[in-house]
Amino acid sequence: MIRGNDPILLTPGPLTTSLETKQAMLRDWGSWDAGFNAITASICRDLVAIAHGGEQYVCVPMQGSGTFAVEAAIGNLVPREGRVLVPNNGAYCARIVRICRYLNRAVADLPIAEDRPATAAAVDAALAADPSISHVALVHCETGAGLRNDLEGIAQVCRARGKGLIVDAMSSFAALPIDVGVTPLDALIAASGKCLEGVPGMGFVIVRRDVLEASAGNSHSLAMDLHDQYAYMQRTTQWRFTPPTHVVAALRAAIDQFVAEGGQPARGARYAENCATLIEGMRVLGFRPHLEPGVQAPIIVTFHAPSDPGYEFKAFYGRVRARGYILYPGKLTQVETFRVGCIGAIDSNEMRNVVAAIDATLKDMGIGSAAPALRAA
Amino acid sequence: MIRGNDPILLTPGPLTTSLETKQAMLRDWGSWDAGFNAITASICRDLVAIAHGGEQYVCVPMQGSGTFAVEAAIGNLVPREGRVLVPNNGAYCARIVRICRYLNRAVADLPIAEDRPATAAAVDAALAADPSISHVALVHCETGAGLRNDLEGIAQVCRARGKGLIVDAMSSFAALPIDVGVTPLDALIAASGKCLEGVPGMGFVIVRRDVLEASAGNSHSLAMDLHDQYAYMQRTTQWRFTPPTHVVAALRAAIDQFVAEGGQPARGARYAENCATLIEGMRVLGFRPHLEPGVQAPIIVTFHAPSDPGYEFKAFYGRVRARGYILYPGKLTQVETFRVGCIGAIDSNEMRNVVAAIDATLKDMGIGSAAPALRAA
Repeated sequence: MIRGNDPILLTPGPLTTSLETKQAMLRDWGSWDAGFNAITASICRDLVAIAHGGEQYVCVPMQGSGTFAVEAAIGNLVPREGRVLVPNNGAYCARIVRICRYLNRAVADLPIAEDRPATAAAVDAALAADPSISHVALVHCETGAGLRNDLEGIAQVCRARGKGLIVDAMSSFAALPIDVGVTPLDALIAASGKCLEGVPGMGFVIVRRDVLEASAGNSHSLAMDLHDQYAYMQRTTQWRFTPPTHVVAALRAAIDQFVAEGGQPARGARYAENCATLIEGMRVLGFRPHLEPGVQAPIIVTFHAPSDPGYEFKAFYGRVRARGYILYPGKLTQVETFRVGCIGAIDSNEMRNVVAAIDATLKDMGIGSAAPALRAA
Repeated sequence: MIRGNDPILLTPGPLTTSLETKQAMLRDWGSWDAGFNAITASICRDLVAIAHGGEQYVCVPMQGSGTFAVEAAIGNLVPREGRVLVPNNGAYCARIVRICRYLNRAVADLPIAEDRPATAAAVDAALAADPSISHVALVHCETGAGLRNDLEGIAQVCRARGKGLIVDAMSSFAALPIDVGVTPLDALIAASGKCLEGVPGMGFVIVRRDVLEASAGNSHSLAMDLHDQYAYMQRTTQWRFTPPTHVVAALRAAIDQFVAEGGQPARGARYAENCATLIEGMRVLGFRPHLEPGVQAPIIVTFHAPSDPGYEFKAFYGRVRARGYILYPGKLTQVETFRVGCIGAIDSNEMRNVVAAIDATLKDMGIGSAAPALRAA
């Protein structure tokens, strides 16, 4: 069969991964075998090192999507009588609120506009107003709009007030700097298929060892019992339940490439260049990014839909896809948007190419200008 | 790099899969993309058809290992005030008991010897003795020892007494016949990396549509909310949270090969031949299978350890592995055993070869006879 190249994924994940990463899945590993368990152990060590966790932190892998790992962290690390403050400026923050409700953890939902970051001042005020709050659950990069919240400032507030901090770093880990030595936190959560550029299928929680050890017996779930997963792995070197062996092998290969690229600084720089190239090219076509530059994370960019009556997302998506690029729908509640990811095994040439594909698509659709409606006053 | 063949996995999963199945992972799929969602839908249709589920049953896929899907089924389908009878003759039955305890579902643990099957008579008596039981949770093939429980008889008892039946068919689905038209049940659970010969990373629940629809609001977990997963997928064609896209693509390829082989009858026949060839060859070496032939499922065989003082499992395992075969440790509490799987993309030649490798290993280790200690009276 003759077939063109696979389309490039410009989404918040799954991403386009390297062929080398995918080829690591061409082998079947036994989950009881020492060779496989050495891979798991090496991944955990490397992930702790990426967060500068030293001896104080451990990494617990968890089967499933990143959301499973987030739920595992909340269910284990927040005691049943705890109360969680969620600075809420997007869909992934709202998901944490939903998880807390399923788990019967009291939640204080702190609404923030979708285009504004969560700040240390706002969190400090909320903590001052409600001393019963035990933990803050923060989404570092909220990819609903694509913004970056002030993790560093909020971590200092949490430390000063003696509150636990659980960070959903799904879309930032390995791309943006996180040093738990200077940004104190209880746990951060990410997944295989994001900025590490592995394939999806497992998440992980990097957690302070003492916090994890104190969490025994909290979990609402056997499968997501983080403490039990950790204790069993310490004792046996194995996962408790069948691991996604091919996904784990691909993550090992992906981390090797991450290290060879130059680690987080290099990966973050590549994504930043991707993001700048994309925004610059799209501006020339008349598109307007939703966020101010100061809060835009270099992960995914939300653009306003053109106001031209010929524009319709499904048709636009389909035509850009036919030109080799898979975009992502918007996730904002108030305005019509779409999103373009900057992450994965792609460089700024790919960003120039997608801008060219979008340009050609607009012409195909007879859309003269990509400019959105005037901004509401 | 020159390297020998990868070892063959003779375990209850992960298995040795075909190259074609693994090669299906050499492509990155977008989780929002119509092409990928069509794959998910086709897998669900095919899985319902394998169980002869018709219009009355639906299939809900679930990220994670099979245990996640088992927990999801219990947490959703057993109401919070329900009571679950678990005929318990092995490690996977004990895991369901543990899940019930995590989920605060009352559980009636019915102990059965590890080498005896759960029978309709035993379940009927237990249901008669405790009318507060609402559901039976049955492990079809208990791979702790490798036996097959009487699903068909127990299903009739459950129907006659009006009890729900949830079947962990992890190690039997697609290999042993299950026809929900004649074996009525509420739900059966299996996973990608077992007898369908996909790679591990997702489970699924094949469930009566009316039972699932009545389960809204029961779940203890957002990530494992089966009803929400189903409702969202019906509405959008998409998974709620990032699917393990490569695992899903591999499962599609694996099911295509399953159908081409001749479906469940052909797969079951191949495994039965594998199992018979293995047991026959091992008997010649002096090994004794733990189970009577009538209860042995053609999935994995437990053999007693040789009584020769030169035998030690780790050394035996390592030497057999060096000869290309990965065995599995025993999981029985009372006697020393090891297990050899009969499933995966392997045929009876592989079984003859592993017997030859075990024979050579015994000679290497200076073990004259593989005979176990005399059976206790």
